Amino acid sequence: MINETETEISTLGEFGLIEHITKGIELKNESSVKGIGDDCAVLDYKNKETLVTTDLLLEGIHFDLTYTPLKHLGYKAAVVNFSDVYAMNGTPKQLTVSIGVSKRFTVEHIEQLYAGIRLACENYGVDLVGGDTSASVTGLIISVTCIGEGDKDKIVYRNGAKDTDLICVSGDLGSAYMGLQLLERERSVSRDSSDDFHPAFEGREYILERQLKPEARQDIIEALAKAGVKPTAMMDVSDGLSSELMHICKQSNTGCRIYEERIPIDYQTAVMAEEFNMNLVTAALNGGEDYELVFTVPLTDHEKVAAMKDVKIIGRITKPELGYYMETRDGAEMELKAQGWQAQW
Amino acid sequence: MINETETEISTLGEFGLIEHITKGIELKNESSVKGIGDDCAVLDYKNKETLVTTDLLLEGIHFDLTYTPLKHLGYKAAVVNFSDVYAMNGTPKQLTVSIGVSKRFTVEHIEQLYAGIRLACENYGVDLVGGDTSASVTGLIISVTCIGEGDKDKIVYRNGAKDTDLICVSGDLGSAYMGLQLLERERSVSRDSSDDFHPAFEGREYILERQLKPEARQDIIEALAKAGVKPTAMMDVSDGLSSELMHICKQSNTGCRIYEERIPIDYQTAVMAEEFNMNLVTAALNGGEDYELVFTVPLTDHEKVAAMKDVKIIGRITKPELGYYMETRDGAEMELKAQGWQAQW
Repeated sequence: MINETETEISTLGEFGLIEHITKGIELKNESSVKGIGDDCAVLDYKNKETLVTTDLLLEGIHFDLTYTPLKHLGYKAAVVNFSDVYAMNGTPKQLTVSIGVSKRFTVEHIEQLYAGIRLACENYGVDLVGGDTSASVTGLIISVTCIGEGDKDKIVYRNGAKDTDLICVSGDLGSAYMGLQLLERERSVSRDSSDDFHPAFEGREYILERQLKPEARQDIIEALAKAGVKPTAMMDVSDGLSSELMHICKQSNTGCRIYEERIPIDYQTAVMAEEFNMNLVTAALNGGEDYELVFTVPLTDHEKVAAMKDVKIIGRITKPELGYYMETRDGAEMELKAQGWQAQW
Repeated sequence: MINETETEISTLGEFGLIEHITKGIELKNESSVKGIGDDCAVLDYKNKETLVTTDLLLEGIHFDLTYTPLKHLGYKAAVVNFSDVYAMNGTPKQLTVSIGVSKRFTVEHIEQLYAGIRLACENYGVDLVGGDTSASVTGLIISVTCIGEGDKDKIVYRNGAKDTDLICVSGDLGSAYMGLQLLERERSVSRDSSDDFHPAFEGREYILERQLKPEARQDIIEALAKAGVKPTAMMDVSDGLSSELMHICKQSNTGCRIYEERIPIDYQTAVMAEEFNMNLVTAALNGGEDYELVFTVPLTDHEKVAAMKDVKIIGRITKPELGYYMETRDGAEMELKAQGWQAQW
């Protein structure tokens, strides 16, 4: 599989590989005191609180390299962790990345992966400060930890939603999931096709990008701050809206009521759902990997959030005994279920 | 492989498994504001600096479950990260653990792994504050990140060693490596033996424990503080003394000279090396996984470190042009080489 223009990792060794992929990294944040090159990274958050989140991404479980470019994968692995820090109303500042790679990967592959990671860091103002590299028996393993900062009185947890609060969501939902369906279908088709197979991706760029290169909603966090709105509870949508909303309600001891007609869905998502003969609302509620923000605000902030670009009010928080419900377009009630993405054990 | 008394992970699912293994976890450190259960853990280090270190441990590369009990593995995975924080002259405070597990693992297996992790956290006063769980295609994957704190003026880097500084090392070296050799041999023997095979471990408990259940040298850090000694440079010995010492010298722009007769070696290590017909000093210099501390102190601290229990002065820092050398017992000079443990790519 390794051709002449590619370099086997064994030619560099572990220390050589680390040196190679971390070349030219500069620390830009004041809080990054010491990055790669010691037993620990050293950070100084002064009077801010420290936020820590971590994700493990495994080939064959979380990603499929037949249709995921390594640069996109690196970008996404970093961004989904930034998203968790924004979901606390914080700012991501540092990242550590550990990788395990099998013999089928070359130095050039790892370069592409890190090109994506470094681009994400650059775009979001985050410093790469550490990690670990290792051989793996099989496949690619990526473990990412993001550290960020937040003001003590501005950090938003999941447990602060109150009865009558408005439920808001950024962007649109279900598009990343429909992008995944499209990629999976084209992969199946390509297997049965001749060599000059061209996947049917035209006009579907948006949903593909949502799946392969998602962005974290730093802009929404900034807009909320600018508008003087502090959400009472917030999460990012990684497992699907239903699942996340139920986390907020359970931890806040509340119920919720959302309205189908208000759930933001992109045109391409709707077209794809029809093509696949899938229920569009199910995709939006349970699809996952949207990395949008779902948050609750007091009723008194109604005007402020209603005026915000790319934010939609989709319902309200209720008393706990009222349960978790969606009102459908035809006025029926549907109970929400946490059918979010779950790995197959 | 799963018998009647064991529970398949699929019966719990991802969220159920997380709930199960994190049951009863209490946060004990003042700096742990919020642990498991939100998008991020929240820490408050006030006027201290934050230390971050991370390790990726892969089955078949870093550990072999035919002779590694899961509880020991969990303990070791946590402790080796604490060791990195002590090596900065800091104190570990929080831990995140992500695991990927294949279908051959049961809930009971994961319980054992976490029993070890939680025991290590208890012994070292560290809070488990987050992580990620996932299915894996094959084998067990463990990713650990440790966060700790340090006083700005007390953190010790690798780059502060000065000409004439004394080189000190805690405990003894090479024992974990000889323990590994013994385990590997007995595994080979057991394969060719009948069912009632009993490995020849008697009288070798010390080197086995050094390999399977290492401890981090918190006691040495405390003793140094008590004695009023701040090392000029420090690392923990994970890749072998030679490799670590060369890291210190390169980053400090110095040379070094150590003395073979002063390198601390345990009796069991020496016996095993003879039995295996291996060079004892090579095992001590390059064996790795000792998790002892190697550090340098100014000459003026000579009396203080000489009086410290379980610390040995093994040489001194020299000018960079003098290179990295060991004086052997017979007075010859041997150049040090970084032959530390390297994964096979």
